[in-house]
Amino acid sequence: MSRTPFDSSEYDRRLDRTRERMADGELDALFVSDPANMNYLTGYDGWSFYVHQGLVVTRDRDEPVWVGRGMDANGARATTRLDDDSIRPYSDDHVQSPRDLHPMDFVAGVIEDLGVDDGRIGLEMDAYYFTAKSYTRLREKLPEAEFADTTLLVNWVRVKKSERELAYMEEAARISENAMRAGLDAIGEGVPEYEAAEAIYSALIDGTDEYGGDYPSIVPLLPSGDHTGTPHLTWTDRPFEDGDPVIIELSGCRHRYHSPLARTTFVGDPPREIEETAEIVVDGMEAALDAVEPGVTCESVERAWREEIAKHDVEKEDRIGYSMGLGYPPDWGEHTASLRPGDETVLEENMTFHTIPGLWFDDFGVELSETFRVTASGAEPLADFPRRLFTA
Amino acid sequence: MSRTPFDSSEYDRRLDRTRERMADGELDALFVSDPANMNYLTGYDGWSFYVHQGLVVTRDRDEPVWVGRGMDANGARATTRLDDDSIRPYSDDHVQSPRDLHPMDFVAGVIEDLGVDDGRIGLEMDAYYFTAKSYTRLREKLPEAEFADTTLLVNWVRVKKSERELAYMEEAARISENAMRAGLDAIGEGVPEYEAAEAIYSALIDGTDEYGGDYPSIVPLLPSGDHTGTPHLTWTDRPFEDGDPVIIELSGCRHRYHSPLARTTFVGDPPREIEETAEIVVDGMEAALDAVEPGVTCESVERAWREEIAKHDVEKEDRIGYSMGLGYPPDWGEHTASLRPGDETVLEENMTFHTIPGLWFDDFGVELSETFRVTASGAEPLADFPRRLFTA
Repeated sequence: MSRTPFDSSEYDRRLDRTRERMADGELDALFVSDPANMNYLTGYDGWSFYVHQGLVVTRDRDEPVWVGRGMDANGARATTRLDDDSIRPYSDDHVQSPRDLHPMDFVAGVIEDLGVDDGRIGLEMDAYYFTAKSYTRLREKLPEAEFADTTLLVNWVRVKKSERELAYMEEAARISENAMRAGLDAIGEGVPEYEAAEAIYSALIDGTDEYGGDYPSIVPLLPSGDHTGTPHLTWTDRPFEDGDPVIIELSGCRHRYHSPLARTTFVGDPPREIEETAEIVVDGMEAALDAVEPGVTCESVERAWREEIAKHDVEKEDRIGYSMGLGYPPDWGEHTASLRPGDETVLEENMTFHTIPGLWFDDFGVELSETFRVTASGAEPLADFPRRLFTA
Repeated sequence: MSRTPFDSSEYDRRLDRTRERMADGELDALFVSDPANMNYLTGYDGWSFYVHQGLVVTRDRDEPVWVGRGMDANGARATTRLDDDSIRPYSDDHVQSPRDLHPMDFVAGVIEDLGVDDGRIGLEMDAYYFTAKSYTRLREKLPEAEFADTTLLVNWVRVKKSERELAYMEEAARISENAMRAGLDAIGEGVPEYEAAEAIYSALIDGTDEYGGDYPSIVPLLPSGDHTGTPHLTWTDRPFEDGDPVIIELSGCRHRYHSPLARTTFVGDPPREIEETAEIVVDGMEAALDAVEPGVTCESVERAWREEIAKHDVEKEDRIGYSMGLGYPPDWGEHTASLRPGDETVLEENMTFHTIPGLWFDDFGVELSETFRVTASGAEPLADFPRRLFTA
């Protein structure tokens, strides 16, 4: 019944590399609750992260142990290759229980059963779905354990992509191109924002002639007018007006792999100020992409952008990109390497980044992004989409 | 520049009721990080919950203080009525910092500035975006504070809906009806699952002739075939086949208010076994709705369902519903009252529930749901959609 998007040897390699890092950190066990990390290590895929769940990875046991809600055990059987003994569901009275019962009580039991309750256990302390209560509860139930913060341990294993992962990101890029075209075509004076959002969403899920699209980890964002200075507002019923800049940020998704893309359009004739800003952003983007090659640091890519825009007398020091790929809501970013001052991560072939420089002012903003792969000699943008200010 | 979906008096009432509960718990301050609670108390709305953010509510200060990422401060200005002094943004180097810098360091500073750092502070210990690290960091930075677990404090304030909230849920219900029709129409032999998902999503955002739809907190779920036994799997490229049962669960959304709806359809001629199961589910649903009235307990509603299905020799004890309304990914549920054995919450007028009983077996499942409001004398389903097994 199981169908996984990668063959078992790829999951085995991922687990091996995770176990190497566990050995480095002298960890006996790792509790993985980030849904992207759960997917990465086993293939598990489902909208079940609104309840507590996770994987227990130990040094010795071949397979990780999936722990989740009873009604999601069939989902684990359907989307992973785990043996039934590696799927341990908790009963429904653990879910949002008014009694003193928490899913982490069950997780503690699994950790005991695996014989690592007196060991050193890594926890993803700053991952979205690992709550403060999950932590205090595990501490209380496992008094013999020593805990370590391993928030990004698996995330760092994810940084370099395999050929198969890159193929899914390429597929996602084709979807992103279609969705960007649909969004740009839909925007116009008098059209409500939600109609443009609908056109984009429709294209994101329709995919291409060959395959459909998965739901993206972040909804399409399309701030317009004075809201272009507020990058994370979502669409409303407001109709676009003549004179509105509109920023579209979206991502196609295949098997949870993303390839984000952002462009800016203008309703009507753009004032010279916005056209100039857009040209600076395009120049800065190209300078950043030109700076990419294996062996250089993340911060040097940001520096190339900053030096380019400084030529136009714009001063701005910012994070202009981040490593990404596999993801679940609320984010497609990996939270590992960032293109920003102070990040000395060295670029390696097959790392993938979303670089999204922008210049925002209080009353308008211009944004442009590319998802790129680090090749043997440079940066290869995954999408093929003109880099310019559009008009609607 | 600000536009809020409720007038200030409604936000004032919500804050008053929150402060009453704070007084009951002898709290000097409350840190609210659940995005639905942030929205409830101030109107704040944006896809920014992928970074740390929150509100600090104190007993004395008129307004809560919004704390978030620098680039989201304009979003707070645009969607709340807060004074500028109540909007406190942290710098971007706090975001996923490789250095020893965390947004909660900044939050601790705000709490000190408000003079409650030696007080009793409530934390939403089991809320999605309040991580283990957020907790350990606040403890470390505020050694004089006493912390209390106030996970559902604001959630319980949200349970009874105002007329305006109910109006948004009614609008969401109109969208849910349109999207359900679109989904049922799209499903058919040979159609890939993603095409049905696209039809549903498109209708969810297109809304009605009068207004558009917001993004729902949970993507449309449409498990089919043997995956109807796995309620939280999302769509794939697989084409529907003759003989597939398909469960559709979706929700329209207006100003973040939901009105979920689920129905089951069958591709081809349904076998007698599935038709009978569907009839039992419909009977059970109607028995549950008939049991609703102010003054009865949540568990008695579940009991009515259980007693009805027992007449058909089906035994199942489960959570069949939950209080809901306002929400952000990954959930539209409030995590407060549940329709399940042991929940003695007493129903009051204008509480709203999503009741979603289902019968799942290893190879198929039938699900049916209604969102209802508790009226002065019974249950009023918000959507008007036939309760039966559909065929495609």
